[in-house]
Amino acid sequence: MANDSPIVPKVEIDTLCDELAALALISEQDPPVVTRVVFNEADLRARAYVKSLCEDAWLTISEDAIGNTFARWHGSEPDIPPIATGSHIDAIPNAGSYDGTVGVLGGLEAIRSLQRAGFHPRRSIELILFTAEEPTRFGIGCLGSRMMGHVLSPDAARALRDKQDQTLEYLLKEAGFQGPLESVALPKDRFHQFVELHIEQGPHLEQEEIDVGLVTHIAAPASMRVQIEGEGGHAGGKLMPGRKDALVAAAELILAVETAAKSTGNISTVATVGVCDVFPGAVNSVPSRVKLETDIRDIDGPRRDSVLTAIKSACTDVAQRRGVVITTEMVNADPPTTSDSAILDALEASAIEAGRTYKRMVARAYHDSSFMACIAPVAMLFIPCRGGVSHRPDEYASPKWIAGGVEVLARTLARLAS
Amino acid sequence: MANDSPIVPKVEIDTLCDELAALALISEQDPPVVTRVVFNEADLRARAYVKSLCEDAWLTISEDAIGNTFARWHGSEPDIPPIATGSHIDAIPNAGSYDGTVGVLGGLEAIRSLQRAGFHPRRSIELILFTAEEPTRFGIGCLGSRMMGHVLSPDAARALRDKQDQTLEYLLKEAGFQGPLESVALPKDRFHQFVELHIEQGPHLEQEEIDVGLVTHIAAPASMRVQIEGEGGHAGGKLMPGRKDALVAAAELILAVETAAKSTGNISTVATVGVCDVFPGAVNSVPSRVKLETDIRDIDGPRRDSVLTAIKSACTDVAQRRGVVITTEMVNADPPTTSDSAILDALEASAIEAGRTYKRMVARAYHDSSFMACIAPVAMLFIPCRGGVSHRPDEYASPKWIAGGVEVLARTLARLAS
Repeated sequence: MANDSPIVPKVEIDTLCDELAALALISEQDPPVVTRVVFNEADLRARAYVKSLCEDAWLTISEDAIGNTFARWHGSEPDIPPIATGSHIDAIPNAGSYDGTVGVLGGLEAIRSLQRAGFHPRRSIELILFTAEEPTRFGIGCLGSRMMGHVLSPDAARALRDKQDQTLEYLLKEAGFQGPLESVALPKDRFHQFVELHIEQGPHLEQEEIDVGLVTHIAAPASMRVQIEGEGGHAGGKLMPGRKDALVAAAELILAVETAAKSTGNISTVATVGVCDVFPGAVNSVPSRVKLETDIRDIDGPRRDSVLTAIKSACTDVAQRRGVVITTEMVNADPPTTSDSAILDALEASAIEAGRTYKRMVARAYHDSSFMACIAPVAMLFIPCRGGVSHRPDEYASPKWIAGGVEVLARTLARLAS
Repeated sequence: MANDSPIVPKVEIDTLCDELAALALISEQDPPVVTRVVFNEADLRARAYVKSLCEDAWLTISEDAIGNTFARWHGSEPDIPPIATGSHIDAIPNAGSYDGTVGVLGGLEAIRSLQRAGFHPRRSIELILFTAEEPTRFGIGCLGSRMMGHVLSPDAARALRDKQDQTLEYLLKEAGFQGPLESVALPKDRFHQFVELHIEQGPHLEQEEIDVGLVTHIAAPASMRVQIEGEGGHAGGKLMPGRKDALVAAAELILAVETAAKSTGNISTVATVGVCDVFPGAVNSVPSRVKLETDIRDIDGPRRDSVLTAIKSACTDVAQRRGVVITTEMVNADPPTTSDSAILDALEASAIEAGRTYKRMVARAYHDSSFMACIAPVAMLFIPCRGGVSHRPDEYASPKWIAGGVEVLARTLARLAS
């Protein structure tokens, strides 16, 4: 740290909470339900709102070809790589007000609190608003950071289609974003360090009454699509012995996914079937086709892969037993992320300075940090959320928790940018 | 029978097959897939096509408030109750070309074949095109005949909503149908007798190489909606032990439905989960709510009800074990239908006259005849369909099978109307 006496950031928590509440109202659904699918009207309106707040704070705004937005507070040495912070504002259907948004608006408030304290950074500080952290639209998460980190190629991005068969490029053009997708990937010296503030999305900090979590590892997420082809027919005329009902086969697989996760015996293993699309989907028709989307996570890569193996083996068994055809397709299987020790040390020193309790912990949900790790040293800072609830309208982080996270983030940014 | 020498109907099977093929092209999907959800543009266009064919045959057309369409060939005693035949032209998503349509266009060809033979009916003969035999739009089958037969009240019909929350009355108005829903139910002397031609939707006639089936009973269908309320959350953050995953609970119920049907030990029992709607339906979100729609049928009412009881008991068990809330709602549970012996005898005499092989059999799928039975003596006439396949694009009935059915129907109509 360059300064002798620590900066004391002036966090205005009431302003920040008002802004979080205002952002939550920009939704595809009525309050308190937040739905902001990327590139839908609510997402675009929410981006405009955040950008206007950034402009009020005298930040310089730029956008890339996929809509990732960068708001820069110029440092006294503007040509050296900046310190970055940020997160996302898109929200899955029926979500809440804090996932992602605390890292964006909280990151902005961290910057403003340093401005109010009279701090002048040596390195520039950049706030990033990542495009499409949620996989809702294209079935793949962290679209913006994934491309920024060279993990998703421009060609693979061009092949993406949403449920209405609209391409990513079409939607980008409609939304007004310009430039070749080739320009989204960034070089390794673009950022000096990246730190992301986020709600825990788990119950531990609240249960242990700890103010902030310093994330040492981010769990390795994998997503697998399972397609079951059976044989349809009339629900009245098709007798039970001759049936190849795709939904009954799917039901066995849904239970197999749960069993596979539980049978590792490790609390960190989770597996979920979040999507079950039935075709033709009529009450008097035997389902002929079902698509399942599964999500498997663990902080240990090989253990996660053992769950995938167990699910695939269940697919083989069910296919043979029921005479249906089952195909699996890996949508993504990303490696776990290890946080940068220098950033973790800065977070720890900042928590101590701020008088906040803290612990080192792992992240089970994956984040834009997972892909920023491909081009920069990263770490994450968690704050508690009530009951560990996330991705639901009753997701909640108290003003006290948020203020704690923002203060530790601000002190960390000051430390890293000095 | 009043006439001494039997009428010899002149069935023009090529014309009929051309008309069936033309009707199949009026679809919401590309050929060979037929989708005609009631009141959608394809359904309305298909109605117009059938009405134009009826006008070409000099039939007098009228429509009721729910869109049931009546095309009358006036008899020499126009004031006595007519003989009626007919079926439906709406089709579930991803259906084929013969379900319902063979009874409508085949019924029309039966009338034309009698006209060509110089037959003059004493009783009028009416062809009926029933509205919404398929439950796709409103979750309840045989809407038109159900109201005609006093089984669905006008108030209950007014309460119906489709998935877009549009009311039946709104859609009727949009489609141009007029009059109070109270006028749809008909008195018991409106029709003298009703006979419906239909594909079997099962494999038996084809397997046994029998030309026509004389339906003695129609299976009793029941439809039950099952709603599972669990607890959502982030697929990464929500650990396995604390979960109340609505889809995993639903998977157990889907298997329980299959088990309940199989465990009656009777081949006539069938049970199907055709709809499984998952909320919120995102890959990284634990499902908080699932709606299942089940269809249970049997020719024996009490045996069918024992399956319903077994499914409800599984709901109680799963709810307790998994800590989810499960509610069930009966959408409909109709009584089995017994065919009228006089019509069956007329069908049998006609089959013998026509030199067609026949057998008496039961119908497992339910039909408009089930509700016409509330206001008139009814019977059904089945023809084979390839592999027993129905409700699929590869549904098929050969010209020979169709011609056989139409000839037996025509002779029967002549017999009953003389």
